[in-house]
Amino acid sequence: MSIRLAPAVEELIRTLSALPGLGPRSAQRAAFFLLQNRKGALDELASALNTARRGVGRCRLCNTFTEGDICSVCADEDRDPGLICVVESVADQMALDASLAWPGLYFVLNGRLSPVEGIGPADIGMPQLLKRIGAGVEEGVLREAVVATSYTPEGDATAYYLIDALKKRWPQLRVTRLARGLPSGIEIEYTDLSTIANAVYSRRDV
Amino acid sequence: MSIRLAPAVEELIRTLSALPGLGPRSAQRAAFFLLQNRKGALDELASALNTARRGVGRCRLCNTFTEGDICSVCADEDRDPGLICVVESVADQMALDASLAWPGLYFVLNGRLSPVEGIGPADIGMPQLLKRIGAGVEEGVLREAVVATSYTPEGDATAYYLIDALKKRWPQLRVTRLARGLPSGIEIEYTDLSTIANAVYSRRDV
Repeated sequence: MSIRLAPAVEELIRTLSALPGLGPRSAQRAAFFLLQNRKGALDELASALNTARRGVGRCRLCNTFTEGDICSVCADEDRDPGLICVVESVADQMALDASLAWPGLYFVLNGRLSPVEGIGPADIGMPQLLKRIGAGVEEGVLREAVVATSYTPEGDATAYYLIDALKKRWPQLRVTRLARGLPSGIEIEYTDLSTIANAVYSRRDV
Repeated sequence: MSIRLAPAVEELIRTLSALPGLGPRSAQRAAFFLLQNRKGALDELASALNTARRGVGRCRLCNTFTEGDICSVCADEDRDPGLICVVESVADQMALDASLAWPGLYFVLNGRLSPVEGIGPADIGMPQLLKRIGAGVEEGVLREAVVATSYTPEGDATAYYLIDALKKRWPQLRVTRLARGLPSGIEIEYTDLSTIANAVYSRRDV
């Protein structure tokens, strides 16, 4: 005798629960919230999704989200076009740029290599990245590529693949990875052993 | 030099962060997830929202979400039309019905009275509820109304208002509230004092 929700409501809950951060219960809460605020939140979200679907694409140069052909970062003349930073996602790009430490451009991969899940170089946009770097090198503009993938097994696999591809094709290009070491604000006592070991191996003269 | 997202992406994050359960950070993650899965999750969510916007309304009898004129609960002939349970929300209705303890019908208020927020009887659908109960009483069908609001200050205020209105208009109608007492599966040691006090006051002979 338990209540069966209307199919359209069930479908709304199902699609919301696909979002990261929303489990089945919070997806139901979100769906009821939207249905209770149909002139407000529901209309606004529906309209934002329709606009995003029609208007948001990928930057032709760096593959980040953009409404135009080229994103605001690639169009920014204050950035050094001799430096390109390769990241796994737009979220990583945002975090890196918020650190204000990177004066150059970016290339956003579509995630990282994962042989287990059958995700290969073409799936994450490796060919486009190599084409972009090749153009930069041949124009004599590009001096350095930073491989800014995470220090996880899949991030490492992606980095190794990319570093190998870059060094084979353009031996003159400087290729770097982000430094490993102690994070800010955390006591050594509470830092994991792999991080401490890397901080020791990469210790620097002062 | 920090990155400015495209306005359509900002707007998508803003509308997603209005959902309960999604803060600004998880709204950004959800937006990037949708933009990265535009043929999948984005299209499905947009389509589910458009369907819900067009197709889902309120049941003419009980005010729950429904795609037709009357919901499946009100149309269910196995339910006792002599019993009506008044709840604050569709979520409360779902939870109550999942307990399998209620054999009757429902009426879903649009929340509860909140003088502080300026939410009065008309805002939560009191007039429709009184009309519905009046019709049931005059037809000689309705025997009991359970006021199933929560035991919170606003839930109590809503209950007092409704009980008063019902008793004045139809003194012959049985009006009840849900029992207060110990929740299942929790040790008395860990139960709050107000709940224990109510369990003592309402103790029953065995």
